[in-house]
Amino acid sequence: MSKNNEENFKNVISHAKEYGFVFQSSEIYDGLSAVYDYGQLGAELKNNIKTYWWKAMVQLNENIVGIDSAIFMHPKIWKASGHVDGFNDPMIDNKDSKKRYRADQLLEDKIEAYKVAGDQQNAESLQADMDEALKAEDLPRLKALIEEHKIACPVSKTCNWTDVRQFNLMFATQFGAMAEGAEEVYLRPETAQGIFVNFLNVQKSGRMKIPFGIAQIGKAFRNEVIARQFIMRMREFEQMEMQFFVRPGSELEWYNKWKEIRLQWHLALGTDPKKYQFHDHAKLAHYANAAVDIEYEFPFGFKEVEGIHSRTDFDLSQHQEFSRKKMQYFDPEVNPETGKPYGNYVPYVIETSIGLDRFFLVTLVNAFEEEDLSTADKQDSRSVLRLHPALAPYKAAVLPLTKKDGLPEKAREIMDALKFDFNMAYDEKDAIGKRYRRQDAIGTPFCITIDYDTLEDNTVTIRHRDSMEQERVAIADLNRIIGDLVSWKNLLQK
Amino acid sequence: MSKNNEENFKNVISHAKEYGFVFQSSEIYDGLSAVYDYGQLGAELKNNIKTYWWKAMVQLNENIVGIDSAIFMHPKIWKASGHVDGFNDPMIDNKDSKKRYRADQLLEDKIEAYKVAGDQQNAESLQADMDEALKAEDLPRLKALIEEHKIACPVSKTCNWTDVRQFNLMFATQFGAMAEGAEEVYLRPETAQGIFVNFLNVQKSGRMKIPFGIAQIGKAFRNEVIARQFIMRMREFEQMEMQFFVRPGSELEWYNKWKEIRLQWHLALGTDPKKYQFHDHAKLAHYANAAVDIEYEFPFGFKEVEGIHSRTDFDLSQHQEFSRKKMQYFDPEVNPETGKPYGNYVPYVIETSIGLDRFFLVTLVNAFEEEDLSTADKQDSRSVLRLHPALAPYKAAVLPLTKKDGLPEKAREIMDALKFDFNMAYDEKDAIGKRYRRQDAIGTPFCITIDYDTLEDNTVTIRHRDSMEQERVAIADLNRIIGDLVSWKNLLQK
Repeated sequence: MSKNNEENFKNVISHAKEYGFVFQSSEIYDGLSAVYDYGQLGAELKNNIKTYWWKAMVQLNENIVGIDSAIFMHPKIWKASGHVDGFNDPMIDNKDSKKRYRADQLLEDKIEAYKVAGDQQNAESLQADMDEALKAEDLPRLKALIEEHKIACPVSKTCNWTDVRQFNLMFATQFGAMAEGAEEVYLRPETAQGIFVNFLNVQKSGRMKIPFGIAQIGKAFRNEVIARQFIMRMREFEQMEMQFFVRPGSELEWYNKWKEIRLQWHLALGTDPKKYQFHDHAKLAHYANAAVDIEYEFPFGFKEVEGIHSRTDFDLSQHQEFSRKKMQYFDPEVNPETGKPYGNYVPYVIETSIGLDRFFLVTLVNAFEEEDLSTADKQDSRSVLRLHPALAPYKAAVLPLTKKDGLPEKAREIMDALKFDFNMAYDEKDAIGKRYRRQDAIGTPFCITIDYDTLEDNTVTIRHRDSMEQERVAIADLNRIIGDLVSWKNLLQK
Repeated sequence: MSKNNEENFKNVISHAKEYGFVFQSSEIYDGLSAVYDYGQLGAELKNNIKTYWWKAMVQLNENIVGIDSAIFMHPKIWKASGHVDGFNDPMIDNKDSKKRYRADQLLEDKIEAYKVAGDQQNAESLQADMDEALKAEDLPRLKALIEEHKIACPVSKTCNWTDVRQFNLMFATQFGAMAEGAEEVYLRPETAQGIFVNFLNVQKSGRMKIPFGIAQIGKAFRNEVIARQFIMRMREFEQMEMQFFVRPGSELEWYNKWKEIRLQWHLALGTDPKKYQFHDHAKLAHYANAAVDIEYEFPFGFKEVEGIHSRTDFDLSQHQEFSRKKMQYFDPEVNPETGKPYGNYVPYVIETSIGLDRFFLVTLVNAFEEEDLSTADKQDSRSVLRLHPALAPYKAAVLPLTKKDGLPEKAREIMDALKFDFNMAYDEKDAIGKRYRRQDAIGTPFCITIDYDTLEDNTVTIRHRDSMEQERVAIADLNRIIGDLVSWKNLLQK
């Protein structure tokens, strides 16, 4: 990442902490690695993101419903899904420092070092060797590559390595208190399986007809060894996933539709389309017949924010086999080719899966600006969060010009008239200019200023965050004006 | 519980499953004990309950903000809070069956058995002995009572018992993948500590002044040995907690205020006040100087739904000691008694803590009715969920009278005009009466019927769930009419 981008990203992180968006978890205990807490403004922004996704996916689509399944699930589910056997990272220990590393990460760091040193040839050959070893899951070969390229432990500086072993990324815990041995259960590493195992419950109780989708928002957990880049890769994170069940053979058509619908959801916020790109998966997971990432250009490069996956009938078929319950749908529609109903089948699935925390980071990074406001006469600047008004933590701030002469009382009246409909801020401390800047910094789209004229004519000034322009409006019109500006419709009708 | 109540509760549970409110978790794998999933209507109802709480607590109170802290926290936090050492159940194993039981539960079952047999004397003496042993945490005495009263294992029927041992209710897991030994972390057993450890982060970044509150909604986990009564006691559950920080000495005044405010929140939904009662804690927890439960009358009796606790400065002081960071607030206000500012102190705390799942059960139980609609001429009945309109999963259903002659198209137009503002259902299958009953059963407060007159005069019929009365209104007025009926203001202004 360039010096400039690095600086900018650091500023976003410190801004997020300073204004109560994101705190390191357990900070007074020196933190817990790769875990973060959302502060008073972060919680509001996160809730608004959830609402935007839920409204767009569930409320506006008659054939998509939402569920909320538990984090704890029957352990057999992770056997069926392949996570018990296959959800691993290849790890290696240095015998001198006793430190553990991801083997592929050590190799990638070495490739980077070759590149920096201008040794393109070694960089390319090591990349090719590593890719081959990872694809074949050849752990001895990974170790051999580490030794051949004389990769040393950053701590002990020695090349005294153990064998490479697989390390499962699921968190396990003991369930119940049976004397005859407790049951080991896992914290779910993805929310998707909670949807698959409820497929028939929802389809039957909701009388759903294919094609239809089941959506959910919830926590997932992965014991990542290397956690990086603030809230990009956390051990505890939140997903917004939707599984769309379709007739076999129609899945690629739906895959393409969902690609476009989901990209549109991102762009509706007004983000520069150049900041987004599709990235097709070169290697497909064992369950997929097509997969693409929606990537956003973070300060540290284009990275995945959302994945669209054509998961075939893999998951439902696995659960059918492991649970011995039929995971089938009876399709009464007539197949024009055979003249008969499609009948019973295991549906195919298109998944849309977005990382809530990553998207939270997108909104912060994309909104944050250190704006230069200098004129010929004086230097000036402001920190501003240009959040979409529908996502902003506070919809408007009410600011009496002074703390006396009945202005605060008038301001309270206005608060009371608006607070049921909008999350409002109130601030009467410091000069008005300073208060505007404070609201700019937390993304409040509108400030409502109460001055002496207000007492005479029941009008107020609305000051707009982005343009910093001001207009005079009647108090009686405030609810409608703000309502129009922050309405979800502005996003959802796009 | 009486036969009638038992029957009624069973009906609620099966209704919840049949209509997609609550499913047993991992049902196709024969379930996971004491864990449940919320289905497509349950997820909506649960979200609406969260919104009601968040609006009432956070949005409408300028001095309360919300956060969203992680489930994983630094393990020292649970040492400081007392959970590592004190959050235990006394367990005993039967050596023959190898089954494990809660010792106090075995004794309580025996007391119940004495009562049923009319042996009031033994019931009372055992109750007194047990209470004394529990209070003294005298485990040998608990075992002695089990032996003296000849309590046998329900499986092996023998009295061959191990000693009573303490069993910690927190779930533990291994964090990270360090070669030198992973770190043991716990799944939080309450959300409150996430608020306490963020007290200074929020106070400073949010410029909060005492008295102020921090609220949060989130999952908590307890390895309950005996899980009962549907979603009343689960291993994974959700809390809505608020910690209100006050000046020492003023805590009981605030405690009484919050008791009343919180009860009012429950009653605003229109619930019969006779269904609620306060229950003062006879024994106070080590951290409390006052505590009360808000109890609702379930079919199985009055049970805790919410607790209001005056937690003193216990938690903040413990974190101050264990983290070695000052957990103090500087209060610039002048103490009229000394003429000097109150200065630095560790605030006192009033907690309001409501079980989201329990309250979900309150809304279901309270709303569910098998209503007898029989007339002299014919027998009739309906299942109806009389949910408050603001909490109902769907705000209205759009029903074209027939599937032809342009009625569905007209119905779609109406859906499209309303769907951005309200979560809407659409149903065109079966006779209109059957469709009304289906919406009654899932709590939809209003049905909008499109008939042939609609095509002529742009009016529709609104049919009200509770009264089953119908009225004719103009399509152009629908948004306003429904908006008024389902508005959060109706709840929040009470």
